Amino acid sequence: MNQIKLSIRQEEIIKLVKQNGPITSEALAQKLKVTRAALRPDLAILTMTGILEARPKVGYIYSKKPTYSLIYDYIRNIKVIDVMSEPVIVNENTLVYDAIVHLFLNDVGTLFIQNNGYLVGAVSRKDFLKIAMGGTDMHKVPVGVIMTRMPNIVFVEKEDAVYLAAQRIMEHEVDSLPVIERVFENSKENFKIVGKVSKTNITRLFVKLGENN
Amino acid sequence: MNQIKLSIRQEEIIKLVKQNGPITSEALAQKLKVTRAALRPDLAILTMTGILEARPKVGYIYSKKPTYSLIYDYIRNIKVIDVMSEPVIVNENTLVYDAIVHLFLNDVGTLFIQNNGYLVGAVSRKDFLKIAMGGTDMHKVPVGVIMTRMPNIVFVEKEDAVYLAAQRIMEHEVDSLPVIERVFENSKENFKIVGKVSKTNITRLFVKLGENN
Repeated sequence: MNQIKLSIRQEEIIKLVKQNGPITSEALAQKLKVTRAALRPDLAILTMTGILEARPKVGYIYSKKPTYSLIYDYIRNIKVIDVMSEPVIVNENTLVYDAIVHLFLNDVGTLFIQNNGYLVGAVSRKDFLKIAMGGTDMHKVPVGVIMTRMPNIVFVEKEDAVYLAAQRIMEHEVDSLPVIERVFENSKENFKIVGKVSKTNITRLFVKLGENN
Repeated sequence: MNQIKLSIRQEEIIKLVKQNGPITSEALAQKLKVTRAALRPDLAILTMTGILEARPKVGYIYSKKPTYSLIYDYIRNIKVIDVMSEPVIVNENTLVYDAIVHLFLNDVGTLFIQNNGYLVGAVSRKDFLKIAMGGTDMHKVPVGVIMTRMPNIVFVEKEDAVYLAAQRIMEHEVDSLPVIERVFENSKENFKIVGKVSKTNITRLFVKLGENN
């Protein structure tokens, strides 16, 4: 990762403003034993990057919300392939009970369902719980009966932005999206399941973003 | 939010580098019809902020990983209180069936359990599903029997960093944390449930961070 390359004096200015802000450029110059003119370029850089904020007639304060456009840019550039994890896939004739066992053994919240190697549906803890409440015999019903079926599955592709995946997760109120690869066969488009992105992946990414380098 | 305040010429430089990078300062000066000396302060600012990267003997390139320390700072400064949502709380003698109904009606993944107004436990979709698989009569067993009980509940407080909440969610492999307030009574510490932070809140925050202002 790139670190912003501040000079020692700029670091000192930030420290002084954190401790004493709001503080005027006169007061800063005095504390650093330099002229105001000598500070001007440093203060220009620190305000331009959004690290400090200049309040007219008040002085400089430390801004806790720096360089928003950079964060925006940074986040938009992380791709699905950088955070996705292994999907857990079962066939659509798997019995509900066996599917739930799969869910627990793999410690995931959503199973993706395939038929002939292609995505046909998805089923979540919520779907299973609904079935359990209804008193359905889980040893008799195949997962294909209760799953959400294509084309009602929202998905992403490997080169999409994680940001897009997060947006779709929130918008469609799901926990997890399959990551797919498009396969054209007999002029029909099919989707191969190659990964998944869930709220867990996004939370893990958030922790990584906040880590001390 | 603060926007980084770039001059029109700096914006033009970024655009040129995005399109033509790697590009030397000579080539940039030519395209902008100015001298290299005139560009020097702008290039200094753009590399210092991490927007551009200067590669010796190659030229300037657009950096997709800018100012990591700023992102770090920014993320660490968002507090639980800025993102938390309403907790869904039931009493520990609520029947499992009724608790699951609560879960669905409120569309949440975790219920927090209180007794005399204080946190005593938590129960998730996963816990409910386990019970359903076992064939337990959900109309007879109270939620207090199956919940995870204090002191095994991980929580956060309103003034904690969301980053800490995300860390705890990942570390303890839970979907949601209660946000608590400490109450001292008869020299005993109790916890009042005042909110919750879940993977959904973190994902929503991530979407917000990536939004175009």
